[in-house]
Amino acid sequence: MKISEYFPIWEQLTPAQQQRLEQAARYSRAEKGAILHNGSADCLGLLLVCSGQLRGYILSSEGREITLYRLFERDMCLFSASCMLQSIQFDIQIQVEKDAEFWVIPPDVYKTLMEESAAVANYTNELMSTRFSEVMWLMEQVMWRSFDKRLADFLIQESVLEGTTHLEMTHEKIANHMGTAREVVTRMLRYFQQEGLVSLSRGAVDLVDLPALKQRSEA
Amino acid sequence: MKISEYFPIWEQLTPAQQQRLEQAARYSRAEKGAILHNGSADCLGLLLVCSGQLRGYILSSEGREITLYRLFERDMCLFSASCMLQSIQFDIQIQVEKDAEFWVIPPDVYKTLMEESAAVANYTNELMSTRFSEVMWLMEQVMWRSFDKRLADFLIQESVLEGTTHLEMTHEKIANHMGTAREVVTRMLRYFQQEGLVSLSRGAVDLVDLPALKQRSEA
Repeated sequence: MKISEYFPIWEQLTPAQQQRLEQAARYSRAEKGAILHNGSADCLGLLLVCSGQLRGYILSSEGREITLYRLFERDMCLFSASCMLQSIQFDIQIQVEKDAEFWVIPPDVYKTLMEESAAVANYTNELMSTRFSEVMWLMEQVMWRSFDKRLADFLIQESVLEGTTHLEMTHEKIANHMGTAREVVTRMLRYFQQEGLVSLSRGAVDLVDLPALKQRSEA
Repeated sequence: MKISEYFPIWEQLTPAQQQRLEQAARYSRAEKGAILHNGSADCLGLLLVCSGQLRGYILSSEGREITLYRLFERDMCLFSASCMLQSIQFDIQIQVEKDAEFWVIPPDVYKTLMEESAAVANYTNELMSTRFSEVMWLMEQVMWRSFDKRLADFLIQESVLEGTTHLEMTHEKIANHMGTAREVVTRMLRYFQQEGLVSLSRGAVDLVDLPALKQRSEA
């Protein structure tokens, strides 16, 4: 694995910058469930994903969670290096959802690149805009979309990500993705089951009528 | 009014860039209530506030609003030039809250500056991080400060059940009904009292403004 094949604007770096990045980045791996970055408790560095799946989420003081975004192959995560940007005043957690391999770019190395190179700084801007857009989408969902539509949407998205209509997820885990309480999820899933959209079993949800679920998510 | 006195990183621009900015920026004013920027309907340019007060907000398809941030003297607004950043996928409205004077910097002029100057690009990054942080704060409020709505709802339901606005209930009992801690209830009830929604006495809660409570429960 070479970082030159994964770093998004490699060809816009000078040879000296490329060399610095190659030397500083460490290749790493982590298993499903691992917490890579824990809010303001650390400043790990930028993550550049090679394989697997990560999720970024926030945590309430009561331990509730909501998933903000997912990271896949070739995605880069800024917020695991938020110490790099003075104006970032929020804490994000990064967890491994599927066994992952990734590069970790030390924050000081990336910060120097940004200061030297308008291309790197502008790329960083686009990256932040992408995450900002994801959070704004979520904000609008949470503010203005009823929970049944959000849940239908979430189940469909999960089924796309997992490549199956048999989702092995507890109600608790769904609640953590969606920023709500387990009981709220359980109540709505039971309603979905009555409506013939899903079938529930221990620790799993089967999507038995995808077209109807889709219709509900768009209603 | 000279833009050189307001533009945040003026001294980091080259003389040629300074001249370009001076020639391109127009000084403008608008009265309270004016909509300066309407989502994706326009790409006005960056706003650099000289005086007055602006607010950035989003709008639901049903016309509901939520204020995301306020802009005051010397604040700069990126999102009125969101066409400049490809990855911005959301629409923000900008409204004048107090009569305002401001510069408008054309998006193409600013974009060129960002491409040429790492300093401008990095400043833009910090600006975006600031707004992002404001939105994240709001998100956490919306997600996790919903207890006030639950409590308002609970009090109304109890009053319907009891047929009176004088509820003889301890904070402990309310907490037990709602699955939360007594202190959380006490804190919120005291806040409600300050807001003139309820009046507290030993072992009792009087609902003194039902319409306002109802409004809060539905907010």
